Amino acid sequence: MSSQPLKIIVIGGSAAGPKAAAKARRLDEHAAITIIQKEADLSMASCGYPYYVGGTFDDRNLLICTPAGIVRDPTFFDKAKRIEALVQTEALSIDRVAKTVTCKHLPSGEIRTLSYDKLVIATGATALYPPVPGVNLDGVLSLHSLADADALRAVCDAKHVRNAVVVGGGLIEVCEALHLAGIQTTVIEKTAAILPFLDPELSKLVANYVRTHGADIIKGNGVAAFLGEDGKLTGVKLDNGTELPCELAVVAVGVKPNVALAASAGLAIGGLGGIEVNEAMQTSDPDIYAGGDCVECTSLISGAKVRAPYGDLANLQGRVIGQNLIHAGSAKFPGVTHTGICKIFDYTVGFTGLSAGQARAAGLTDIETVTVAGLDIPGFMGGKLLISKMVADRKTGRVLGFQCIGPGDVSKRVATIAMAIRGQLTIGDLANADLPYAPPYSLALDHVIVCAHVMENKLLGRMQGISVSEVKQRVDSGTDCFILDTRTPPEFEARRLGIGETLIPQGALRARLTELPPDKDREVIVYCAISLRGYECAAILEGYGWRNVKVMEGGVAAWPYPRER
Amino acid sequence: MSSQPLKIIVIGGSAAGPKAAAKARRLDEHAAITIIQKEADLSMASCGYPYYVGGTFDDRNLLICTPAGIVRDPTFFDKAKRIEALVQTEALSIDRVAKTVTCKHLPSGEIRTLSYDKLVIATGATALYPPVPGVNLDGVLSLHSLADADALRAVCDAKHVRNAVVVGGGLIEVCEALHLAGIQTTVIEKTAAILPFLDPELSKLVANYVRTHGADIIKGNGVAAFLGEDGKLTGVKLDNGTELPCELAVVAVGVKPNVALAASAGLAIGGLGGIEVNEAMQTSDPDIYAGGDCVECTSLISGAKVRAPYGDLANLQGRVIGQNLIHAGSAKFPGVTHTGICKIFDYTVGFTGLSAGQARAAGLTDIETVTVAGLDIPGFMGGKLLISKMVADRKTGRVLGFQCIGPGDVSKRVATIAMAIRGQLTIGDLANADLPYAPPYSLALDHVIVCAHVMENKLLGRMQGISVSEVKQRVDSGTDCFILDTRTPPEFEARRLGIGETLIPQGALRARLTELPPDKDREVIVYCAISLRGYECAAILEGYGWRNVKVMEGGVAAWPYPRER
Repeated sequence: MSSQPLKIIVIGGSAAGPKAAAKARRLDEHAAITIIQKEADLSMASCGYPYYVGGTFDDRNLLICTPAGIVRDPTFFDKAKRIEALVQTEALSIDRVAKTVTCKHLPSGEIRTLSYDKLVIATGATALYPPVPGVNLDGVLSLHSLADADALRAVCDAKHVRNAVVVGGGLIEVCEALHLAGIQTTVIEKTAAILPFLDPELSKLVANYVRTHGADIIKGNGVAAFLGEDGKLTGVKLDNGTELPCELAVVAVGVKPNVALAASAGLAIGGLGGIEVNEAMQTSDPDIYAGGDCVECTSLISGAKVRAPYGDLANLQGRVIGQNLIHAGSAKFPGVTHTGICKIFDYTVGFTGLSAGQARAAGLTDIETVTVAGLDIPGFMGGKLLISKMVADRKTGRVLGFQCIGPGDVSKRVATIAMAIRGQLTIGDLANADLPYAPPYSLALDHVIVCAHVMENKLLGRMQGISVSEVKQRVDSGTDCFILDTRTPPEFEARRLGIGETLIPQGALRARLTELPPDKDREVIVYCAISLRGYECAAILEGYGWRNVKVMEGGVAAWPYPRER
Repeated sequence: MSSQPLKIIVIGGSAAGPKAAAKARRLDEHAAITIIQKEADLSMASCGYPYYVGGTFDDRNLLICTPAGIVRDPTFFDKAKRIEALVQTEALSIDRVAKTVTCKHLPSGEIRTLSYDKLVIATGATALYPPVPGVNLDGVLSLHSLADADALRAVCDAKHVRNAVVVGGGLIEVCEALHLAGIQTTVIEKTAAILPFLDPELSKLVANYVRTHGADIIKGNGVAAFLGEDGKLTGVKLDNGTELPCELAVVAVGVKPNVALAASAGLAIGGLGGIEVNEAMQTSDPDIYAGGDCVECTSLISGAKVRAPYGDLANLQGRVIGQNLIHAGSAKFPGVTHTGICKIFDYTVGFTGLSAGQARAAGLTDIETVTVAGLDIPGFMGGKLLISKMVADRKTGRVLGFQCIGPGDVSKRVATIAMAIRGQLTIGDLANADLPYAPPYSLALDHVIVCAHVMENKLLGRMQGISVSEVKQRVDSGTDCFILDTRTPPEFEARRLGIGETLIPQGALRARLTELPPDKDREVIVYCAISLRGYECAAILEGYGWRNVKVMEGGVAAWPYPRER
């Protein structure tokens, strides 16, 4: 204790910043640690905002308190962690030569210059707004800050708003909150599909679900202007000229990393607009670390730089920084697997790794995909549907990505595959995975294992798949093919596609082969409810010489287009 | 089709057998495939029996039908899969030279000899009964066959039974079924702990939970005799002489692989009593495969032979066999990770890999363990408790095992770590895992990541842990140590251990250091609700010179012994 205590300054008090500060404290009781936070609150559980807005809980303090119920205010940081937290204080500039940060206490205007030995930049990101007229109207909100959450919650509680739009398909959770408040909601998505991390067929299924559960969706049409009277929002005008009346617009078109401070200080900024860091989360100045939404990360799959503004990663990065502040070079953040999840009414949408579209965009062209529908647990236990798409490298069999949607337990399957991807496992490894099986939790062959089995069948050439979108194209263009539904008559009565299909139940197929096309090279497309029986029937037909039999992957469950019934 | 169709015989119609048969059929439409099944039913969902007995569902057919609702009887196997299923037919002998199986139709007594090119043995296992008097009394049941399930369901429906015992702690799910039927139930476990795949502290926590939710547990005391009158069970006598009145005894002391047929045919039987197979699931006769509960598997962790009689593995093995029947050597079952799970009332108990006890028994002595308690999702979303113990190799950091119990979502965490173990991931890999995070599904740092963080802290010497059992020993033996509870006064008022602890809330610790032992070498044991604050406080004390500070892992949540309050 004869040496001077290490002086650490952390700019940013949301996720990565406080985590870095707390970890540094645990490793050095005597360091002088200061957090500079522009907002009034600290360590906000920002991913919880939609659930506070939606009324899952009413006590706003739950967003900013510890599990033991203590609000994480400057007093808490002082008492529990001996960390000085300067709130409502903006960092204005960094002098890397003098090793100082100049900051301003916003309420008083007081300006101070603090010196550091090690600095952490965790300045986060800012919600983007579309560059259109009317964006400053009263009623145009985001859901990025706790102040945004307060404002939206007040709107929901007041029950004055009748119509709202959500601009951008990236924060679809908010639809549920608005729906619960009795607000008619329309999602406006400029691109062709909501949830761009999903491949189109799965995205369409989610859109269908959302439309039948409380929110309309308009795709391929952006907001041209926010319309208003007396400074208040009254509607939006779309790119195609349509006007929608609404008193509330929640903008969710993405975020932009806050790098102005870092850039002014001359730190390297990456090509994607985030602060450049190495595996130690060190910036181009070795005494300055950065983490959270303001940095660029490395993809563990493609090796490319990516932006990954997620709260869990911010915490992981903060922990790595905290260790390196005290023991330089002792910890590494290797990169991200691209994992995410969101809840939309009673549907869950999750993903890990690359979608087929992302894989191709990353130059991984020799890929195979498979779409599988099935229950999460047995029907007799109340099983719910899961629809998944898995992506693998055709040569190595390595799992590259997994998307999973549905009312079933998506979260477990995504976590499982995220770990498989982290371990660079192949489809062969997954096909014999030893997972926890009991009827309350899984089928005997868990959904992720079935996905691997179907993928293996495709990779080995034992099954030819065809996607629902390709089948739809065939049907729409009048392509010559024989479409076979192999379900039972009651299933066919209850629900059917009406795309010119012939019904031959699986159990009758061998006796009714004469009803199949005599030309054994003609394309035959087979499906059932989820295309397990469809696959078995394809094998039967191949056994009798048909040479061009394709299984419509995911079956009726994965069909996102209108049905006859 | 000019060549003779391949003749395949499968002995056993429960899980591995039908799966092998179905997979072979998909790969060869023209093979002649016959299943020989001693029981009347086929493809029974045997893991569902406790839930049928407990009334989760009432339609018994759900245990033997396809997801589309078709009962898997011989007609179904014939029509859908063109597989001949001979039920109520017992395989009597195998002639490996003539390549024939002789079998007997039990109702008619008719004996047939069938010839095979390839044979599959999937004869399963039989429930063990303790070798004590009275085991044949009416009222002594198992829950291994569908007939057992029918009998137990009838007992529950009749509501005549008032007292039951469950002999053996291995099938604790049945307690819930009996409790729901209003039956007073006592579990009798011969060894010191129920659920032998758990280490003792976690097992004790589960026992505490079961005791407060409807079933008594007697440990370290076996059944010496079943007592009866007029052939009916009236009670059990324990090893220590105690007699318990009961009209029902459910025996769950394990299973024994059915290898008599294989052994008579001269196939190699392993040291653990199961049929020996290689990675292709081939027995010592290359034309005979075996899978399911009757075989021995390889542990992917220790490399040792193990028995793993689980339904999911039987299905995986059956699929491998089916492929090798048609394309010899084309598929491999590499081995097991030792993963399992069960539901006990609203508690889940899961494990993957080795417990500390199993690791030491397997000769892996240089291990580190960590016990962690925490919520599965945020408190504001209704988070529930998880208590886990992780085991890692100290030198390589490789994850060796994970046990997880509690009312929270155990299944997801066990699946995640099962996959991490499969990928041979280290604690370092897990510490930065990119898992699906959103408040309905996880904390920002998921429970499994927190386990890895605490383990990392221990491996790096940043935290000294002490188990609840070691603390209890210290207390019971009057060992000199200073015990520090770092929670808030309201938490201390609500619930406390009463083991001589001093309360100093975390936020007050630095100001009250004079209350700590002046001898800086004295052992200080610190804890809180889950020992996160406890860990931070240990770091504080170390920062001020205390040299022997230990964190009681899992905190109050993991304390399985009586508390003062």
